Amino acid sequence: MSKKKSFWFDELSMPEAEQAAKDGKVVIIPCGSIEEHGDHLPLNTDSIQAEYVALGVAKKTGCLVAPPLRYGLCNSTRNFPGTITISFDSLRSIMTDILDDFIRNGFKRLLVITGHAGGSHMTAIRLAAKSVIVKHMNEADRPRIMICSDYDFAFDLRGIEFDDRDSHAGTIETSRVMAIRSDLIKGKGAPNFPNLPRFEVVPDPERCFPSGVMGDPTVASSETGEKINDYVIEQIVKLVKELEQ
Amino acid sequence: MSKKKSFWFDELSMPEAEQAAKDGKVVIIPCGSIEEHGDHLPLNTDSIQAEYVALGVAKKTGCLVAPPLRYGLCNSTRNFPGTITISFDSLRSIMTDILDDFIRNGFKRLLVITGHAGGSHMTAIRLAAKSVIVKHMNEADRPRIMICSDYDFAFDLRGIEFDDRDSHAGTIETSRVMAIRSDLIKGKGAPNFPNLPRFEVVPDPERCFPSGVMGDPTVASSETGEKINDYVIEQIVKLVKELEQ
Amino acid sequence: MSKKKSFWFDELSMPEAEQAAKDGKVVIIPCGSIEEHGDHLPLNTDSIQAEYVALGVAKKTGCLVAPPLRYGLCNSTRNFPGTITISFDSLRSIMTDILDDFIRNGFKRLLVITGHAGGSHMTAIRLAAKSVIVKHMNEADRPRIMICSDYDFAFDLRGIEFDDRDSHAGTIETSRVMAIRSDLIKGKGAPNFPNLPRFEVVPDPERCFPSGVMGDPTVASSETGEKINDYVIEQIVKLVKELEQ
Amino acid sequence: MSKKKSFWFDELSMPEAEQAAKDGKVVIIPCGSIEEHGDHLPLNTDSIQAEYVALGVAKKTGCLVAPPLRYGLCNSTRNFPGTITISFDSLRSIMTDILDDFIRNGFKRLLVITGHAGGSHMTAIRLAAKSVIVKHMNEADRPRIMICSDYDFAFDLRGIEFDDRDSHAGTIETSRVMAIRSDLIKGKGAPNFPNLPRFEVVPDPERCFPSGVMGDPTVASSETGEKINDYVIEQIVKLVKELEQ
Amino acid sequence: MSKKKSFWFDELSMPEAEQAAKDGKVVIIPCGSIEEHGDHLPLNTDSIQAEYVALGVAKKTGCLVAPPLRYGLCNSTRNFPGTITISFDSLRSIMTDILDDFIRNGFKRLLVITGHAGGSHMTAIRLAAKSVIVKHMNEADRPRIMICSDYDFAFDLRGIEFDDRDSHAGTIETSRVMAIRSDLIKGKGAPNFPNLPRFEVVPDPERCFPSGVMGDPTVASSETGEKINDYVIEQIVKLVKELEQ
Amino acid sequence: MSKKKSFWFDELSMPEAEQAAKDGKVVIIPCGSIEEHGDHLPLNTDSIQAEYVALGVAKKTGCLVAPPLRYGLCNSTRNFPGTITISFDSLRSIMTDILDDFIRNGFKRLLVITGHAGGSHMTAIRLAAKSVIVKHMNEADRPRIMICSDYDFAFDLRGIEFDDRDSHAGTIETSRVMAIRSDLIKGKGAPNFPNLPRFEVVPDPERCFPSGVMGDPTVASSETGEKINDYVIEQIVKLVKELEQ
Repeated sequence: MSKKKSFWFDELSMPEAEQAAKDGKVVIIPCGSIEEHGDHLPLNTDSIQAEYVALGVAKKTGCLVAPPLRYGLCNSTRNFPGTITISFDSLRSIMTDILDDFIRNGFKRLLVITGHAGGSHMTAIRLAAKSVIVKHMNEADRPRIMICSDYDFAFDLRGIEFDDRDSHAGTIETSRVMAIRSDLIKGKGAPNFPNLPRFEVVPDPERCFPSGVMGDPTVASSETGEKINDYVIEQIVKLVKELEQ
Repeated sequence: MSKKKSFWFDELSMPEAEQAAKDGKVVIIPCGSIEEHGDHLPLNTDSIQAEYVALGVAKKTGCLVAPPLRYGLCNSTRNFPGTITISFDSLRSIMTDILDDFIRNGFKRLLVITGHAGGSHMTAIRLAAKSVIVKHMNEADRPRIMICSDYDFAFDLRGIEFDDRDSHAGTIETSRVMAIRSDLIKGKGAPNFPNLPRFEVVPDPERCFPSGVMGDPTVASSETGEKINDYVIEQIVKLVKELEQ
Repeated sequence: MSKKKSFWFDELSMPEAEQAAKDGKVVIIPCGSIEEHGDHLPLNTDSIQAEYVALGVAKKTGCLVAPPLRYGLCNSTRNFPGTITISFDSLRSIMTDILDDFIRNGFKRLLVITGHAGGSHMTAIRLAAKSVIVKHMNEADRPRIMICSDYDFAFDLRGIEFDDRDSHAGTIETSRVMAIRSDLIKGKGAPNFPNLPRFEVVPDPERCFPSGVMGDPTVASSETGEKINDYVIEQIVKLVKELEQ
Repeated sequence: MSKKKSFWFDELSMPEAEQAAKDGKVVIIPCGSIEEHGDHLPLNTDSIQAEYVALGVAKKTGCLVAPPLRYGLCNSTRNFPGTITISFDSLRSIMTDILDDFIRNGFKRLLVITGHAGGSHMTAIRLAAKSVIVKHMNEADRPRIMICSDYDFAFDLRGIEFDDRDSHAGTIETSRVMAIRSDLIKGKGAPNFPNLPRFEVVPDPERCFPSGVMGDPTVASSETGEKINDYVIEQIVKLVKELEQ
Repeated sequence: MSKKKSFWFDELSMPEAEQAAKDGKVVIIPCGSIEEHGDHLPLNTDSIQAEYVALGVAKKTGCLVAPPLRYGLCNSTRNFPGTITISFDSLRSIMTDILDDFIRNGFKRLLVITGHAGGSHMTAIRLAAKSVIVKHMNEADRPRIMICSDYDFAFDLRGIEFDDRDSHAGTIETSRVMAIRSDLIKGKGAPNFPNLPRFEVVPDPERCFPSGVMGDPTVASSETGEKINDYVIEQIVKLVKELEQ
Repeated sequence: MSKKKSFWFDELSMPEAEQAAKDGKVVIIPCGSIEEHGDHLPLNTDSIQAEYVALGVAKKTGCLVAPPLRYGLCNSTRNFPGTITISFDSLRSIMTDILDDFIRNGFKRLLVITGHAGGSHMTAIRLAAKSVIVKHMNEADRPRIMICSDYDFAFDLRGIEFDDRDSHAGTIETSRVMAIRSDLIKGKGAPNFPNLPRFEVVPDPERCFPSGVMGDPTVASSETGEKINDYVIEQIVKLVKELEQ
């Protein structure tokens, strides 16, 4: 019989889930993607960062972590090998269902942490949350939903400690994965600072960064990654505490 | 640098994913649910069985396993605490995207293993697969998709070794979870053989089985579970081999 | 001026329909398909069986029969000549409208009898009913909807009097049509017991049974058909009585 | 074994359907509604007129008649007892499927005859036809679709022999039903010449004609109905001949 | 600081808009199209007539005019150069949003004036209005919506002063544009009285009137146009007054 | 007869539009919103800036300007009086139609300039453009679409000449409107630098800035506005030239 308390929501039994709802537990929903991250990082790079952070936050706050949604919407990297993307409508629809059904279950404090942070990916999640929040806005115990990417915080040091243009599969991301799953790293990668079209909507953005990298992964380190991961967890712990009020 | 070969598709790097497509690797997509399974089993019961089987099959065949989709469509258990369900349209839509995008990436042999096997859940996945298969039916290397539930095989022994009515959270399912994650079991459960309405579509089927159990979990055992899991893996290995031809 | 009482709902005038709703009449909605049934049976095979049964039940119970929906969803027979199929979404959408609008008219006891019983066809109807039932579940006089196929009963004798594999256009179906519309039978057909793929979703299932038959029509007889039809009517009369309570 | 040749498409067997497509047979699709037509006419008034005409045309031309779609879209009569209406999207969707699937079967000459002729009902059918025609417009044997209401012709005599405002359940319609199914007539009805709002979109148009009649049914006669029905059939025979060219 | 009172709704500031809603102001929503009108009239022919009329009515009644929606649904002219059309669903969807959001803002008296009056264009707007009206029908201050085309009135003189068949880009329309924006007229056009197929739904209706004209523009005059425009404004003023009651 | 060449696309006649397509003209599509902009600015603030800029660019480059779409998607200001918003799906759908139909007409170089620049508004337009571009990506003369907001450039001076937080209805926006339509300004407004929730999705963001202003409109001036407008035009002229290559 189980003793250890789990942070994963779906490791609970039915009565435990009922109790957790009554206790007003915050639930974190980690989102990722299956997306190329250069030759050196795994396709699950976005997913494992969000899940690592979610579990880190759960350990510090006692909140719960829902099963990750590892299927996300990848726009600029879609045509690279290995990227598996879902449509805007699929993402919006499933996120609407997930958020709404946690609320139906009595979980009124929800936090989405997404490791992938592309523009339309974020909008799909935000529209889902908005529709759910508006639907329940006149209820006595109005639900609350927050949405963040771990990169809302991880990029805080850009322009200070790291190159201002560091991004996808660059120094910060490579460092973070080194700190989380070093066994998944293949080689060092190569620096690349591409210019993506700012205004033109193109069908083949991969032409602008054939290596799939935006930044300099060669200067990444596990220590740096650990420091950033700790910082991100610390920041998101604040969000959970705000939700718990 | 990584040495060990991974069975998880999204642990691959971009070049490894490209190579895997060229090698004609079969990809298994495990699906589960977040669903009450009585007081004694965890909400992820369906998910962990499908994932355990998928990894078991991968180890024996060298095929790859995509990130699980743990959000499924639960009809009769929807109103129990802990069940988080998505809509038919969300499930059909995301499955269509996932199957279609693996094919776009060059993976032409796909196998969905779903631990949840409700009627509309299965139909959503089948319609997704059908639309994808029809879309590509005139291509030179026509893709192939199989869909099964591990319970298509696990129930083979029903009526022989187990009660003919054994089902949701009963002897077979409890045994299987005991063999996979005994740490998630809470107590022994209680036997229950409910009569669900066969023809009437009701809004509150939970009234017919308030304990959330259909079968007798008290006679379950880890050894039984192991035997069934092995048998299921063995059967699905055959499907993969058929896809590899 | 009309004397004879009609069982067809749409033969009523407006005031008669209003009265029937006040009287709490059960309404049966017969569904069929336009689908190949071998060389020997007509395309309306599914439709005429459901309608025959619906009228038979109406005569014994005094309930009403709505206009049949003869357009259904045919999956495995789609590519045979003569099969006219509608999409899952069309079927679900029109059934939702029909069920919901009968309830809006005050008919709170509805029974769908479908002569076609393919998996996605049934799911489309069930999802329609479910959404309607859930929508009205908190009303004082909560509506009730049942869904059955006449084959839920006609197949009861399979494995006893008939081959266990008897199915589409086989002994039972041919016999039933002989008893209903012998003028539409063309020849005797030929026995065929195909193996359809159990797990693979294929774009061309017709390859597995080129004659369009699953069973042995050669041993069919009108007497057998009559007996089965009577039995089916008897069983569905019980459903209507249950709805009338 | 059948001798008599049927005009109903779905009374054919699979090989007969295949032959009919090869023979270039025109297929008529009759559409109706379930709609109040005053106290004196049955709810199937629209349906039986369209089907009577369709069969009449088939007898004179040898074309085929598809199963009727008796579920239509009723806007102004929706709130009267007995009216069962489907949504615009359901009607458009199912008509698109039906037209498209007849064409897929090789029937390239289609004629929809709808007994109900409300504005949005007609637009739904027209949009369905348009999308299907455009989809196939570059094929060698471009399909052709015509859409008419029997009232496109039955109203030709309005303003000449009949009151210019004669319409729903009035002289012409009552006469036609008397000629087709006199057993379904209940009493004589009462004259009513309502003013419906021309520009305002109201939720309760029934307020403007509480008897559900627009015209004078009291002067209807079976002889008149027969004459009109013959005339309508004659006109639609011309359309079929045009399609056959 | 502004002195002059504007008739354009969106020239108001936020507090002025709030006040206008409290004052019960009628809001006119002008709709047009971008559509060929022969060689002699501009693509915005439909738009500028509706907007001219809307402003004329506003000046006489003090009502407000919302920003025009110049994107409409053109069916029979779609394949001519210059026609930019939107789909039925887009038009219905945006009109639903616009009407519903004015009502949410407290504007309960709305009048759509559309310069384009094709059948499916009108149905899209009517269905939008119907769904909005039905949604709010049980509210204390039930909103009211009227829909008209300026051609509902401009064609009143057809068969009297003008050819009965005068229509698209003909005498009336050319005259009206001459009176509104004579600077946009290019030449005189040529008379053309085409026969469009009455029942057949064709993919290329432009074949029936290659000049894009239906009527005789050569006899148009600015004076005629002015007279018609005044008449149309006068008629629509009556609708606004009816809404104001 | 017209002499002056128009920059408005829909002031062209059919043959002129055909010629413009052949000439490879760039078409600008201006988008706005109907949105509160404090007490001092009109609801059409976003629209008139985008249209002013579009015409300015057209005058310098000879490109064409399509009819503005003044209905946009307003998220954070939705609940203020005067804001009329359309849904994400409506905006995406109509923009998809517009872009696709210009391309069908032969206009392969399109530029959307939107005066409103909210996140979901921009994503709706971008997704529309992306779907259109991908649909045509394999055509010989592959179409090109650019999307920008005039605020992509107008905010270049933020943090230099203007407060870093200057935004909605602040110094820059007020100045620009003063330079374009000073007659629409009502008073001076009041400075307001609100903190909107960064992560929480709230149903009532208006609580955070009750005046509807984000910035300091009191230091705005017409001269500043003119300078910024010129700068924006200059920048967008470069985009048009890039499209013309």
